[in-house]
Amino acid sequence: MAVPAPGLPARVRIHEVGARDGLQNEQTAVPTEVKAEFIRRLAAAGLRTVEATSFVHPKWVPQLADAEQLYPQLADLAAAGVHLPVLVPNERGLDRALALGADRIAVFGSATETFAARNLNRTVAESLAMFEPVVARAREGGAHVRGYLSMCFGDPWEGPVPVAQVVGVARALLDLGCDELSLGDTIGTATPGHVRSLLSALNGAGVSTDRIGVHFHDTYGQALANTLAALEHGVATVDASAGGLGGCPYAKSATGNLATEDLVWMLDGLGIETGVDLAALTATSVWMAERLGRPSPSRTVRALSHKE
Amino acid sequence: MAVPAPGLPARVRIHEVGARDGLQNEQTAVPTEVKAEFIRRLAAAGLRTVEATSFVHPKWVPQLADAEQLYPQLADLAAAGVHLPVLVPNERGLDRALALGADRIAVFGSATETFAARNLNRTVAESLAMFEPVVARAREGGAHVRGYLSMCFGDPWEGPVPVAQVVGVARALLDLGCDELSLGDTIGTATPGHVRSLLSALNGAGVSTDRIGVHFHDTYGQALANTLAALEHGVATVDASAGGLGGCPYAKSATGNLATEDLVWMLDGLGIETGVDLAALTATSVWMAERLGRPSPSRTVRALSHKE
Repeated sequence: MAVPAPGLPARVRIHEVGARDGLQNEQTAVPTEVKAEFIRRLAAAGLRTVEATSFVHPKWVPQLADAEQLYPQLADLAAAGVHLPVLVPNERGLDRALALGADRIAVFGSATETFAARNLNRTVAESLAMFEPVVARAREGGAHVRGYLSMCFGDPWEGPVPVAQVVGVARALLDLGCDELSLGDTIGTATPGHVRSLLSALNGAGVSTDRIGVHFHDTYGQALANTLAALEHGVATVDASAGGLGGCPYAKSATGNLATEDLVWMLDGLGIETGVDLAALTATSVWMAERLGRPSPSRTVRALSHKE
Repeated sequence: MAVPAPGLPARVRIHEVGARDGLQNEQTAVPTEVKAEFIRRLAAAGLRTVEATSFVHPKWVPQLADAEQLYPQLADLAAAGVHLPVLVPNERGLDRALALGADRIAVFGSATETFAARNLNRTVAESLAMFEPVVARAREGGAHVRGYLSMCFGDPWEGPVPVAQVVGVARALLDLGCDELSLGDTIGTATPGHVRSLLSALNGAGVSTDRIGVHFHDTYGQALANTLAALEHGVATVDASAGGLGGCPYAKSATGNLATEDLVWMLDGLGIETGVDLAALTATSVWMAERLGRPSPSRTVRALSHKE
């Protein structure tokens, strides 16, 4: 029974990150064929944006070292209109992605200096300088560019991140030419008032809500409540990971990303259109969990797969 | 960093149900001394309403058969102003509770006929008739009476539960003399629009929001988002279970009740006063998890206890 709530978007675009953000956190690399089948099943379940892989140096993310082998296997999905964005860290990665015909790319920025130093080995300003030609060349080639912004709420080394600081980097990413932003709560500490505060500040800096996606982690169980706060603000792009793939390293089945199934349960209940078939999606996550050898941390996957 | 959101209550009363609703779902009974120590630690962590036990027939809930032994051990907490409500199903249970000096009792009603038949072996009307003298005599004795109402959103046999049907039973419980209601999403299927719809309908039937508490289950990961929707409506009494105790029977560490820690994380982040010390509460749940021999399903407990 769908019971709408006033003021929420009629339709939400789910940006599925399980195959990239999820699988890059696995201890051992998943076989290319399994990745391709996973993405194929996600698309068959109705997901229309499935982040496929990352063109980072294999030394840094060996789990995704097969990007060149994987991406061409998905050509039929791309031809059928499924968006298959790929992460590129720099021009070298962009060259690899464009050579394979990628038409949606994403760069990965940080709102904090400490995470920029640790993740990108650069200052925030240096990382923006690195992204500048990437974004420019991608757009020249007709590609859509997403700008991820991590540590938008809290940073494990710096603590709470000032809203103005996040707005500054967000603004800079858009000024480089990014088409959309994904605001990451990388360590999962955000709460709904903080979410609203950042969204309002971005609007105040001239960023329209339709260019903003949200990317919440469920480390403290807050992801879905934060998503609701974002929807209430008008956000209509939500990142999620099938089955909650992409866990924290410290505990088996502990969770990192918001599980797509938990999100779809809420959106279905609110009568918000996503195009996703929850049963097919759950079956896909159960299938993937079998391949990974451990249960999904998604509450909805557990509840629904028990009943099957 | 607390970032308030406009329109939410300044203070929330957490009605802690772990010692009753949680432990009654354990396979084996927890020793009375452990229960007493658990409640003592919950109170020390700042919880001011800790549901202590249930005076049901020991045949039905053997896990709580020690109510007569447990309750008197908590006299110092009661004297210190900690509310220790107890569940009573009928006059026999009320007699037992009153004989021990209980001054806060709760009856347990159902919004659906099927659950009333299965849980109470009565129709809804018959169960209300059974509660009538319980509530009347409790109030004559000066006790505060809470009316639980289960299956307020979905019922495993009947499916979605019509809002008007819930309002009818809620109204009847208040008319019997209940001081407050606790609206239970017993199977965890509710979503935020449904929550708002029921709250508005109750207001429309003359039930003021300050007499309403909410009791969400996290079976599909929706509990905290539903709580946010209730807070936005003005609800300021929220049931939760320390460590998420009270799991579904089908999976180890699967979750039933909203974990108090996940709730407190959100309320702390919103700057909403609860009086609860999250670190002390988490330590209590870790302690209890060790006694039960399995980890807490609470995301916040897992994240914080890993860091300790």
